[in-house]
Amino acid sequence: MQNIRTDLALEAFDGQGASSLPGVDVRRWEAGGVTLTEVVVSDDDASRLLNKSVGRYLTLECGLLRRRDPDARAALGGLLAEELSRMLPPMDGGACALVLGLGNRQITPDALGPSVVDRLLVTRHLIEQLANLPGLRPVSAIAPGVLGVTGIETMELAERLVDLVKPAAVVCVDALAARDSARVGTTLQLTDTGIQPGAGVGNHRRALTRDSVGAPVIAIGMPTVVHAATLARNAFDWLDRQRGATADPAALDDMERALLSAAPGDMIVTPREIDSIIQDAAGIVAAALNRALQPDLSDAEIAAMMD
Amino acid sequence: MQNIRTDLALEAFDGQGASSLPGVDVRRWEAGGVTLTEVVVSDDDASRLLNKSVGRYLTLECGLLRRRDPDARAALGGLLAEELSRMLPPMDGGACALVLGLGNRQITPDALGPSVVDRLLVTRHLIEQLANLPGLRPVSAIAPGVLGVTGIETMELAERLVDLVKPAAVVCVDALAARDSARVGTTLQLTDTGIQPGAGVGNHRRALTRDSVGAPVIAIGMPTVVHAATLARNAFDWLDRQRGATADPAALDDMERALLSAAPGDMIVTPREIDSIIQDAAGIVAAALNRALQPDLSDAEIAAMMD
Amino acid sequence: MQNIRTDLALEAFDGQGASSLPGVDVRRWEAGGVTLTEVVVSDDDASRLLNKSVGRYLTLECGLLRRRDPDARAALGGLLAEELSRMLPPMDGGACALVLGLGNRQITPDALGPSVVDRLLVTRHLIEQLANLPGLRPVSAIAPGVLGVTGIETMELAERLVDLVKPAAVVCVDALAARDSARVGTTLQLTDTGIQPGAGVGNHRRALTRDSVGAPVIAIGMPTVVHAATLARNAFDWLDRQRGATADPAALDDMERALLSAAPGDMIVTPREIDSIIQDAAGIVAAALNRALQPDLSDAEIAAMMD
Amino acid sequence: MQNIRTDLALEAFDGQGASSLPGVDVRRWEAGGVTLTEVVVSDDDASRLLNKSVGRYLTLECGLLRRRDPDARAALGGLLAEELSRMLPPMDGGACALVLGLGNRQITPDALGPSVVDRLLVTRHLIEQLANLPGLRPVSAIAPGVLGVTGIETMELAERLVDLVKPAAVVCVDALAARDSARVGTTLQLTDTGIQPGAGVGNHRRALTRDSVGAPVIAIGMPTVVHAATLARNAFDWLDRQRGATADPAALDDMERALLSAAPGDMIVTPREIDSIIQDAAGIVAAALNRALQPDLSDAEIAAMMD
Repeated sequence: MQNIRTDLALEAFDGQGASSLPGVDVRRWEAGGVTLTEVVVSDDDASRLLNKSVGRYLTLECGLLRRRDPDARAALGGLLAEELSRMLPPMDGGACALVLGLGNRQITPDALGPSVVDRLLVTRHLIEQLANLPGLRPVSAIAPGVLGVTGIETMELAERLVDLVKPAAVVCVDALAARDSARVGTTLQLTDTGIQPGAGVGNHRRALTRDSVGAPVIAIGMPTVVHAATLARNAFDWLDRQRGATADPAALDDMERALLSAAPGDMIVTPREIDSIIQDAAGIVAAALNRALQPDLSDAEIAAMMD
Repeated sequence: MQNIRTDLALEAFDGQGASSLPGVDVRRWEAGGVTLTEVVVSDDDASRLLNKSVGRYLTLECGLLRRRDPDARAALGGLLAEELSRMLPPMDGGACALVLGLGNRQITPDALGPSVVDRLLVTRHLIEQLANLPGLRPVSAIAPGVLGVTGIETMELAERLVDLVKPAAVVCVDALAARDSARVGTTLQLTDTGIQPGAGVGNHRRALTRDSVGAPVIAIGMPTVVHAATLARNAFDWLDRQRGATADPAALDDMERALLSAAPGDMIVTPREIDSIIQDAAGIVAAALNRALQPDLSDAEIAAMMD
Repeated sequence: MQNIRTDLALEAFDGQGASSLPGVDVRRWEAGGVTLTEVVVSDDDASRLLNKSVGRYLTLECGLLRRRDPDARAALGGLLAEELSRMLPPMDGGACALVLGLGNRQITPDALGPSVVDRLLVTRHLIEQLANLPGLRPVSAIAPGVLGVTGIETMELAERLVDLVKPAAVVCVDALAARDSARVGTTLQLTDTGIQPGAGVGNHRRALTRDSVGAPVIAIGMPTVVHAATLARNAFDWLDRQRGATADPAALDDMERALLSAAPGDMIVTPREIDSIIQDAAGIVAAALNRALQPDLSDAEIAAMMD
Repeated sequence: MQNIRTDLALEAFDGQGASSLPGVDVRRWEAGGVTLTEVVVSDDDASRLLNKSVGRYLTLECGLLRRRDPDARAALGGLLAEELSRMLPPMDGGACALVLGLGNRQITPDALGPSVVDRLLVTRHLIEQLANLPGLRPVSAIAPGVLGVTGIETMELAERLVDLVKPAAVVCVDALAARDSARVGTTLQLTDTGIQPGAGVGNHRRALTRDSVGAPVIAIGMPTVVHAATLARNAFDWLDRQRGATADPAALDDMERALLSAAPGDMIVTPREIDSIIQDAAGIVAAALNRALQPDLSDAEIAAMMD
């Protein structure tokens, strides 16, 4: 279906029969009330067909997250830390991690990345003291701001940061758009394919990948919105499936114009309580990142070092 | 059409042929790029038919507002101040105004009321100095918080405030829901009918009206959201009008459940830049209120008194 | 010493030989790295002499709090919950607690009370469901705003709230001023004497006490500032003690004018990181309050009910 | 006097007889209720003696600013825009300006720089459209965050930004520390000497100057704090001047330890209403910068382009 915008690989693969393609492995399992789905694209033909880079895409889904269930939060945080640790290279000998909080901190549903960066244990500047703090790994983190706010292409800025910090791994955190509103605030996506042009709520035109950076680039994202046009198209799609008909793409475009084009700017569908969803998710993601990036520190030691 | 939720009288009247009803006067005019529509419901029969209280409903629409056009803002602010002055009773002899900022300040699209209160010139506590400040009128203002946050019914709290302050006029400011996404952030509604049960983004179960308060109650609102279900129903409605068909209400309910019920909580449609829309609108509404409530002060005198 | 402003009973008693007065019992002990000092004023003569109401004043001090030590936070939170439970009356048969978050949320060091209210589990409006939720106690909470912001005397508003909610206990949370800068962000004060005129960073001219309310009134406070004049006077005081001299009160007043009166408004001494100190302390106090007010719920059940 | 920390050149020069030094020109004048003081250090000997770089230091003082007088604000904003225009090189042929908002946005009195950046008209990314927008000059802006938050030296990051943007002028905005509390929130400093090591509330160890950047570097700052130690030392100093004595430096150090060292972290003296002082000043500085950087646009055109 055209014009359905989603940043979730899981949704992009849906309905394309991805699981039966050669070069694509799909695995699904459950742990602690969280459903994990791993899609590994290992083949260039499959990559082209699905329009998704070769690599690993992991989705963690947990409907209870929106209900703030503390067990669900702990389970999700623990699984995320584990999977992050698995994706990160061994960070020995002073190798530094660089965390990029993408998105615009002034726009609530786009503020996930900056909010995570605000909660990270940042240590790179303590490097001379690291001899006294055995086990502490150097971490740097920045929320560079989006193009419309800085006038500077995020990926160009990221290149300069990489050049300055020379990280052994880059982790990008960003808010995503989903197709299915039930995924907003309940799903985390983790991938080792980095950031592709056009992905995310914002626009990052250059790629930030292992190839462009020379180090692994891990992307963590959570859907925080559905585009309003997508919701309207979903409604159409549902209706036509009910009626056994097929929507005419031109009619869909007309409808979108009629319903939304009078509204200047981009209309999004988001939960009323998005402010607290962002704060909660930022807490979970930051805690998982702190654990994965500081494997020799306990949670209490990490908390004690933050200020 | 069922289940289309709107707080705008203009949208509620639409399609009901309100303008040709006896007991309903509709007048529309333009000034400075702003379209004003006044609906006066003067008759109990019309009131019952339209399910709207007897009174005056004024809508100010200005598409350029979302584009932050400074002339449009000045024009809208000026007209709002004028119309407010017309609705307010003469505030002589120390009579006090009470402004209530309704809504939840923690939820961005619901924070219009509290944001306006934050920008008001509040003077009631300076009452003993008023002799020295000729022309300064007593104003009190509070954002009492919503039921889910305080555990106290907003209207019950409002009653106690009215009893304490004994205002000569009450002004309520609240965020609204529209049917048409083009009205979000571009339309202001002003009415002398107060706050009715169930109106607003939040839920205010008791009425706050001239009858319940014993003083005029003016409500100012701006749509900040469209309910997601409304957008989906609009899509259906549009499609069926195109196809010359009529939507089956049961099918609409099924569709809403299929698209939205998996999403816990209330999904809303709102502009991406809603944070700055709220700040801008709060500035315009507060400035207009300050002018209308302090007719003997200049804008500069008002600014100089605020801190 | 004149003009040394402190809201901590502990500091007010210092140097007055309070511990040896008849009608005053002072007890000090340690638990989990926290120093607790309890002063019980049981006698009207002592009360007049010390200018402090008859009642119990408990201070919890923990220097590690400012260093964000997680063990210190847990210890302090646990002790605070215990002591609050001891002060609260049995809340049976649907008796409701009312929590008042005093202070101005727009002024960082004054925002402790509103920040605590933002994190409370509020349940009074769920009262009809309480039959289904055995063990859940009704709690209401509000941050009414300060006089300069609302134009309404906080204590007058509190009276109306008490009249509306008819609570079995009132808990007030407020930011305090200390004399000793080492106490800022490291000390909590708990008292069953309520709020006295002139206490707190803001000004609450009427009292909120067991007598005025007809129910126990517990006040929780944390120093967030030292008045700049107090710091300057402390410097003087220190110097004169060093030199064996005694400061001339008129000279102190002159000095205060010379150093501070050119600065319009009130100058305060506060830690650079006061924003995060407030957030941290609000989390500790709210968690302790939630535990004490919901004795039949686990921390996990409390977290799951919040949104 | 030792250990008196100030970032204001005016205060550093005070008492050093700077105005009578060869190689130093001091000029003072008034306009619209604002006192302007210009110190030009033109000589290396004078520079060494005063420990201030060769260059121009301009101070704009306006006590009414803290009282939010609208005329004072307009006068100050206009003068600042004029003086900025005078310091900026001609920005022709697509030459770009880079504005750096220094400081930590999470710490209220350190958030001036980031708050200014949030209000700037940023246009560099619209460069392809500039042909259609004659008169629009390219501007980029970023709040890079402080070392303790990012783990990256601000000046190292600034170097990379300069390398990426190749600006024709750099403007840095930062919060400052004053000696005299009356200057907090009432004084702006403008200099063409850039940012020197150790200046500002934060610590920027490398220099950002015309030499290091290859383009003019203008720094705008406003004092938002006095260090608590400075206030205590001022008190001493005042007392000793009254008594005709001279403070013993060792006694001063002892006093500072006694009064402040028990308080972990850095204690600052700041006005209670620092949150609104920062917001107001950010508005004035951003408006002046927008005017100076877009000389061909009216204020209304600038406002209309922002979002």
